[in-house]
Amino acid sequence: MTAPTEGRTMHSPQHQHGDARHQPRSVATHRAAVADLLAPLLTADRVETLALRDALGKGLAHDIAAPLSLPPFANSQMDGFAINTADVSDGGAELPVADPVPAGAVPAALARGTAAPIMTGAMIPAGADAVVPVERAVPDRFPAPGAESTVWLPATAAGTFVRSAGSDIAAGERALAAGTFLGPAQLGLLAALGVGEVAVRRPLTVLLVTTGDEVVEPGQPLPAGKIYNSNGTLLESAMRQAGLDVVRTAIASDRPDELRALLRSHAGSVDLIVTTGGVSKGAYEVVRQAMEGQAAEFIHVAMQPGGPQGIGMFDDVPFLGFPGNPVSCLVSFEIFLRPVLSVMFGAPAPRTAVRARLAHGLTSPEHKHQVRRGSFQPDGTVRLEGGDSSHLMHALAGSNALVHVPAGVSALAGGDEVEVWML
Amino acid sequence: MTAPTEGRTMHSPQHQHGDARHQPRSVATHRAAVADLLAPLLTADRVETLALRDALGKGLAHDIAAPLSLPPFANSQMDGFAINTADVSDGGAELPVADPVPAGAVPAALARGTAAPIMTGAMIPAGADAVVPVERAVPDRFPAPGAESTVWLPATAAGTFVRSAGSDIAAGERALAAGTFLGPAQLGLLAALGVGEVAVRRPLTVLLVTTGDEVVEPGQPLPAGKIYNSNGTLLESAMRQAGLDVVRTAIASDRPDELRALLRSHAGSVDLIVTTGGVSKGAYEVVRQAMEGQAAEFIHVAMQPGGPQGIGMFDDVPFLGFPGNPVSCLVSFEIFLRPVLSVMFGAPAPRTAVRARLAHGLTSPEHKHQVRRGSFQPDGTVRLEGGDSSHLMHALAGSNALVHVPAGVSALAGGDEVEVWML
Repeated sequence: MTAPTEGRTMHSPQHQHGDARHQPRSVATHRAAVADLLAPLLTADRVETLALRDALGKGLAHDIAAPLSLPPFANSQMDGFAINTADVSDGGAELPVADPVPAGAVPAALARGTAAPIMTGAMIPAGADAVVPVERAVPDRFPAPGAESTVWLPATAAGTFVRSAGSDIAAGERALAAGTFLGPAQLGLLAALGVGEVAVRRPLTVLLVTTGDEVVEPGQPLPAGKIYNSNGTLLESAMRQAGLDVVRTAIASDRPDELRALLRSHAGSVDLIVTTGGVSKGAYEVVRQAMEGQAAEFIHVAMQPGGPQGIGMFDDVPFLGFPGNPVSCLVSFEIFLRPVLSVMFGAPAPRTAVRARLAHGLTSPEHKHQVRRGSFQPDGTVRLEGGDSSHLMHALAGSNALVHVPAGVSALAGGDEVEVWML
Repeated sequence: MTAPTEGRTMHSPQHQHGDARHQPRSVATHRAAVADLLAPLLTADRVETLALRDALGKGLAHDIAAPLSLPPFANSQMDGFAINTADVSDGGAELPVADPVPAGAVPAALARGTAAPIMTGAMIPAGADAVVPVERAVPDRFPAPGAESTVWLPATAAGTFVRSAGSDIAAGERALAAGTFLGPAQLGLLAALGVGEVAVRRPLTVLLVTTGDEVVEPGQPLPAGKIYNSNGTLLESAMRQAGLDVVRTAIASDRPDELRALLRSHAGSVDLIVTTGGVSKGAYEVVRQAMEGQAAEFIHVAMQPGGPQGIGMFDDVPFLGFPGNPVSCLVSFEIFLRPVLSVMFGAPAPRTAVRARLAHGLTSPEHKHQVRRGSFQPDGTVRLEGGDSSHLMHALAGSNALVHVPAGVSALAGGDEVEVWML
């Protein structure tokens, strides 16, 4: 069998053969293809209702309208005196002190011409329209409970230090939109609204299969010529961090029938198959061979690293084939799969994208979107970690960001601005 | 009983009384105090050894030196032909094709004057010093296995497309430093090094107690004058997201003896007590009262929101008392506790800090460090969400960033640069 080459250049002669005949896809085109592949998984029955505690890190399934206003009632922003502002003239006024208003109670209406001590968060009594902070009163403290006394208060505008009902959100307004990532603040809002459980999108279960007969699991002795399996740990961790359920397995055989049997044994219980390795055009490409006869294609994306990609269906399960180098794997996940999950399912939260100045120059293949690894610095610069080679795990582990060099750019200088995704 | 005021201004008369006699603390001073409080928890026995899979999101306990080099052996960066560059003159050379070198095998030495087909990642044979990519060969593909043939190859510099042993990291070098946050890339590196398990710092167990007799749990009916408990969900989620183990409870009583009994019932099994509410100077401050006689103080930090803070020991357990408004709670956690955990324990990963331009102007109390909530935009601007009031949960839920306005600044204009922490 003739093994065609990996076709790393845009116009290599191999493009006339088989599935390599197409021009490389753009990053955006391939990401859209991944979105199309996963779209059928966005069904109404992939929703589960969870207690707030269990919904952390999930994507909200439906819009949620506020069942009540926040705050639910007008309340005091300060410890102070609730007054009717008409009772205090421009020069201030001495008023008798009424019964205090604690938080959590429904107070009696304020008698005109009196001032009621009120605690932060307590309901504004009917008839009151402002709060004077206690430190502006004379004397500047509350009288002992039960003691009859008066207090001098300065003139105050109506509404001062009153949190009006619905000033944060009004009942019936949309509190959260479907597809919102549920972090602490979003769950805290639901709790404030009295919502005790929430419908979220069920996370995808991914079958992760690393391939390569040169690969040994960590903790085992390393025979000469072999390397340890880092893709499994790297991708499983990245997927779990992104909220996916992962079934991880590895195959060290280069026999396509064994890989097919492995995939079939899991296919009924997973939503997505992701493989690593075996997708380029070398002589021993077990994933390409196992997918023969399936509705899957092996294409080249104009990206470095991570150019060779497989995509399609294995039987009736969506399939993505990432390349075999660890950095290529992670970049494939971060550029193609993770952003699609964020947009489509609301989880994980999207990566923060920032503009940064390069600490030093770089070169990039002009027809490819290059993804470099870097350290984003507090001063807004980004330092490249390691070179552009996709085997540099130590450099990756010292990075906190992916640096984007778009297609059409062949060189950048120190100080040039780039887009950076924070890892 | 006289209830002193909350002392919101720097020079309120209450500063002459009791524990309010001091000037407000700076944010940095209070964060340092939190670090001092937690320092005794950083002991050698707070370490556990976990499989890589279980170490995701934890902090590395000890430096790890690379037990082997990466790559472990010189290997090919391309599918191509391994050659000795001395065999190919400037004009190129026609060489007999030797047996192919697959990945995972120890190849025979390269016979001088021959070219061996080699796959990406395969070991460079002894005697070879470069790889010519197959697409630069003529013919530009590999011969069928066993077929005798020759190939024309261009002149090539020694070292071309060879990943030399140790070019990522050399055996004995420090692979990861103690205190490193273990994300996918760091765990992937350990796997690549053959390390199957790793010593990490055991996460702290936090007793989280929300207080307030005006507070009702979500899912229950809401009596007039009451509000739902959002602090519990908000802070528990933030703490769990930060990798802490959380024991969450609430107390709706304003009786200090009940709170003390609750704290004592958990004190033996937790590392840290965090309360919300009851720390300011209102009339019903259950946390302050419960902590009487303990080595704890209630101070004011020059920060808005989150000024009133409690800190110290309850019996022999470190204690932090956050204020009662939800936004104040979260800001207290993000500004004081979370960064200390990141630095001291290596987990969670620190927040990304970026410089951003304000989308519009703001005012800030000159003597306080103001922390506003905002939406960081892809164009590098940040839009403020909601006002400066600490009850705005809906605005918080629409934010992705904290916006810092340092003490000494009373106003900023649109376009001014601020530091932003990505949530």
